[in-house]
Amino acid sequence: MRRDPEKTYEKILEVSSKLFFEKGYENTSLQDIVNNLDGLTKGAVYHHFSSKDDILDAIEDKLLVENNPFKKVLVYSELTGIELIKKAFLLGIEDQEQQYYNKISMKIWRQSEKIQSPKMIAKMIEINKNILAPDLCKIVEKGIKDGSVDTKYPMEISEQILLQINIGLLLAISDITEKELTGKIEFISEWTKNMGVDFLDKELKEKLKHVFMEYCE
Amino acid sequence: MRRDPEKTYEKILEVSSKLFFEKGYENTSLQDIVNNLDGLTKGAVYHHFSSKDDILDAIEDKLLVENNPFKKVLVYSELTGIELIKKAFLLGIEDQEQQYYNKISMKIWRQSEKIQSPKMIAKMIEINKNILAPDLCKIVEKGIKDGSVDTKYPMEISEQILLQINIGLLLAISDITEKELTGKIEFISEWTKNMGVDFLDKELKEKLKHVFMEYCE
Repeated sequence: MRRDPEKTYEKILEVSSKLFFEKGYENTSLQDIVNNLDGLTKGAVYHHFSSKDDILDAIEDKLLVENNPFKKVLVYSELTGIELIKKAFLLGIEDQEQQYYNKISMKIWRQSEKIQSPKMIAKMIEINKNILAPDLCKIVEKGIKDGSVDTKYPMEISEQILLQINIGLLLAISDITEKELTGKIEFISEWTKNMGVDFLDKELKEKLKHVFMEYCE
Repeated sequence: MRRDPEKTYEKILEVSSKLFFEKGYENTSLQDIVNNLDGLTKGAVYHHFSSKDDILDAIEDKLLVENNPFKKVLVYSELTGIELIKKAFLLGIEDQEQQYYNKISMKIWRQSEKIQSPKMIAKMIEINKNILAPDLCKIVEKGIKDGSVDTKYPMEISEQILLQINIGLLLAISDITEKELTGKIEFISEWTKNMGVDFLDKELKEKLKHVFMEYCE
């Protein structure tokens, strides 16, 4: 029986995510993945991926790039820049697939006090800088035009917001208290407001806090 | 002849840094390092380090932790908090060993468009968060007491400044123009000023720009 390579590829990602989530990344072997692929051989997996790391890489690509909320919100052309930024963060928080991925990431990061998956972090920094920040920046620039945003630094602020939320907050989370988390979120809210991008309102702050505390559980 | 293990350890770090700097990290093999160690065997190197990565790790530890400028400045007890923060950044910029290390880091990062040494970045994030930020925070708190700093977020600001300079700026540098760099530095200067930690004055901005442009060469 011939299999559709694209379906096989997606199936490998699906099974691997599930195992990484349930058993943790370190405790999942390539053989475990093969065992859950209904008769696929290790060779078939190697046809698509060179290692377990490579699979993780593809999962990240899929979720961080395909689910890019700053692209998704562009359909709401009637909203102002600042409304679009809020909407994008809400989408990120409310997207089930994104949440599932974030929980896998947490599992990987929390396996020890040391950062367990440096490649994942490096990748996140890269995606932040090269994909998400330029997209967020477009929305910030729209906000400057429609008057809902007031900054001389659209790109710098975009990079910075993402660095703080995706790296500063996500990485801090493994040993953070609710009070510390609240402080970090209040801080981001205050400096972005001071710098003319007032997107972190009460609703979004509460939701961010809620979703981050959930990762800690 | 018996060798002093501590001297051997230091010698390995010294020779490795030199080779990483001259040939690049990826192009330096463990054998290259051994060849430059005046008759030491590979076994002697393996006695101290398990891999090339492990050597890089030790170099980073030595430079980032031992050279911690936020600890070093504490001897200047007559200075205000904000003066100590400026002093610490100047020390970091003017320290020859630190500059040498930064140039090695740049070489590693610039070998390709992709981040080449994710472990290094992960380590930097960890050291930022666990060692440098708490030390910078102590100085910020001193500044709050003496009135030179005005913030409700001493720890958040400390983490954020380091994340921006050590991750945001250092990682951006491989393909940055002078204009972009100026924008990033102005941005950091403006938001920290807005948030009550006005440390990035004209002199420090110029020196930071100068040293970062030098890394790009």
